[in-house]
Amino acid sequence: MSMREKALAMHKENPGKIGTYSTVEVKSKEDLGLAYSPGVAEPCKEIEEDLHQVYDYTSKGNLVAVVSNGSAVLGLGNIGPEASLPVMEGKAILFKEFAEIDAFPLSINKKDTEGFVETVKALEPTFGGINLEDIKAPDCFIIENALREALNIPVFHDDQHGTAIVTLAGLINAFKLVDKTVIDSRIVINGAGAAGVAVTKLLLSLGATDVVLCDSKGAIYEGRTERMNDIKTELSLVTNREKVKGTLDEVMKGADVVIGVSAPDSITKEMVQSMNTDPIIFAMANPIPEIMPEEAKEAGVKVIGTGRSDFPNQVNNVLAFPGVFRGALNVRASEINEEMKIAAANAIANLITEDELTPDYVIPNPLDPRVVQAVSSAVAEAAIETGVAKQPVNQEVVESSKV
Amino acid sequence: MSMREKALAMHKENPGKIGTYSTVEVKSKEDLGLAYSPGVAEPCKEIEEDLHQVYDYTSKGNLVAVVSNGSAVLGLGNIGPEASLPVMEGKAILFKEFAEIDAFPLSINKKDTEGFVETVKALEPTFGGINLEDIKAPDCFIIENALREALNIPVFHDDQHGTAIVTLAGLINAFKLVDKTVIDSRIVINGAGAAGVAVTKLLLSLGATDVVLCDSKGAIYEGRTERMNDIKTELSLVTNREKVKGTLDEVMKGADVVIGVSAPDSITKEMVQSMNTDPIIFAMANPIPEIMPEEAKEAGVKVIGTGRSDFPNQVNNVLAFPGVFRGALNVRASEINEEMKIAAANAIANLITEDELTPDYVIPNPLDPRVVQAVSSAVAEAAIETGVAKQPVNQEVVESSKV
Repeated sequence: MSMREKALAMHKENPGKIGTYSTVEVKSKEDLGLAYSPGVAEPCKEIEEDLHQVYDYTSKGNLVAVVSNGSAVLGLGNIGPEASLPVMEGKAILFKEFAEIDAFPLSINKKDTEGFVETVKALEPTFGGINLEDIKAPDCFIIENALREALNIPVFHDDQHGTAIVTLAGLINAFKLVDKTVIDSRIVINGAGAAGVAVTKLLLSLGATDVVLCDSKGAIYEGRTERMNDIKTELSLVTNREKVKGTLDEVMKGADVVIGVSAPDSITKEMVQSMNTDPIIFAMANPIPEIMPEEAKEAGVKVIGTGRSDFPNQVNNVLAFPGVFRGALNVRASEINEEMKIAAANAIANLITEDELTPDYVIPNPLDPRVVQAVSSAVAEAAIETGVAKQPVNQEVVESSKV
Repeated sequence: MSMREKALAMHKENPGKIGTYSTVEVKSKEDLGLAYSPGVAEPCKEIEEDLHQVYDYTSKGNLVAVVSNGSAVLGLGNIGPEASLPVMEGKAILFKEFAEIDAFPLSINKKDTEGFVETVKALEPTFGGINLEDIKAPDCFIIENALREALNIPVFHDDQHGTAIVTLAGLINAFKLVDKTVIDSRIVINGAGAAGVAVTKLLLSLGATDVVLCDSKGAIYEGRTERMNDIKTELSLVTNREKVKGTLDEVMKGADVVIGVSAPDSITKEMVQSMNTDPIIFAMANPIPEIMPEEAKEAGVKVIGTGRSDFPNQVNNVLAFPGVFRGALNVRASEINEEMKIAAANAIANLITEDELTPDYVIPNPLDPRVVQAVSSAVAEAAIETGVAKQPVNQEVVESSKV
């Protein structure tokens, strides 16, 4: 069977990939009387008296909604909510498999940002966290900002922050190999969609001083008027302080790092050779990267990562989101802030020791069983340090056995 | 431990009662590549081409949302969405336990009917059916009507129709014992909330000609102006054609059946004695019925049912909603219409043979394992007969092994 046939058969069998189950027995009349009427009135009354007890008596604290409107699904584009469901189900089962989080897929019929935000706001009582997925840019920025503002539970757009965290982890390790730092490197980011914007912001939080963000029209600079939007304008004021203009090949000259998140086959050997010494490239267009690893190495690249599982250094979000949410839920964090994301990136990077570190091993394997635990502990600690952890916590919770 | 302590302990243990699980293996890199990227793109593309295939490649067809805003929870009143969650979780696990339906609790933060409707409409792509729960009257009527109009999946407000179906089942059998019929009996219904309204409508669909609906102000009649609302006005035009006025004790004189759904301890022996020969009473106020069974029998009642599990003839919705949804989902019914509800009531009633039938056994035991199968087959058949079944069906599907 071809991969296509296998994938269709897997999805058709049950059909679908997700189910629900009861965590309590409901076999006898007594069970029924405790789990449902009349016994169920007791936890209801407790929660009515003190809303925080919803975490003590319901599944809320371990429930994450995987929400999309299907407007930017994988490389498929705006395929709508129904067609996006297999991806949301897939994401939900990864939450379960990697972090014991009960995630539920919700593909919703809301194309407009306002309607999307209103719908997710209404879901807050039920869920402990919201994972946004596959929403087109720039809508995803508007939606995430509005929800972060409105809700008291973590909201995380994985296409942005999952990618940013894992990229940063790879970059941290790559810098060790070439003896450079984020602060004095020129970093070019090609693609101003969800991932490009989030990578840019995370690098700025970490102290990067020389970042140039590009889109299909080339470098984004303060004062550019063509094809701008709110987020590009915002970033034009804090990146590219030299106001460099021009296309990717011009901007790449002298750069230390290039991070590509949109344009397959857009980087040539010549462009690599125009970079600074020991160039680093993350070429994450999928399935065809900006440049193939072999070609990049022939041109002198020191470290290259891609989005593909058949090359070394795969930037796979599964390294981040399960542990990020596990850590946030363990301490009932009210949000997932930049410090928590940076902590996650460092935790991922530090799983590879100095001895193990090689140009082909700057990012751990997605199936490395140590990852979730390391990320969740680091994220929980960062939540406590930044004051967003809402439950009394102790070390045991931070290092939670619940993974 | 008291019942209260046991119930709180049960809810606190995990905590909560619901979880999600993956129906496919995701242990190896190959599993990941089929269930998630890149394999998952294949079912997405199939669904994009033909939306109906969402039933073939996702869990939608077996997923039911249990949705509430917590505005009328059990006997607790308007306790809000968070405090209602234990009930929604309880309901969800009953769907699973009784009918293998993957139900998910959604307590939503929408007090207004319009916001509630908009939120649930947005959820349509994900679910195969919507079970509305614990929404105050008359909002519940407005919400259900709007959703039935807007959605192509079954919408069922269990507090209305679950109660109505099981009451009707009990009444069908009670009539056999006293040799009366629904058509020539005077039926008094006390309570014009969710359950009372739905029982009234279902009896009218079945051909009842002499129904008098009462609320706290007494009989509802054409032209009444005090404490009316849209649904009471609507029903005032098709019930109580003699325009009887007065309080419950006056209206009960000469009645064959009284169905109480709201007022504990509101029926006296004298009131029972004023009824026609062989009176039938369903006294479903909970936990204190309109009249206790023993007292009713002393006053000459032939058959009495209540909402309580410690008396005979318990009107328990679990006899209806699992099989109703199982049947509707099995044939992808686009709605749950009156014919399907009546079929469900007859199926429940017919599980008790003429030989078995006694005044204390007109309703099957809620844990009777035959109920779900009988109800789901009957509902599926009625869906096909009324043209609302949307999938090519055969007898095997109707008698589905999937229960």
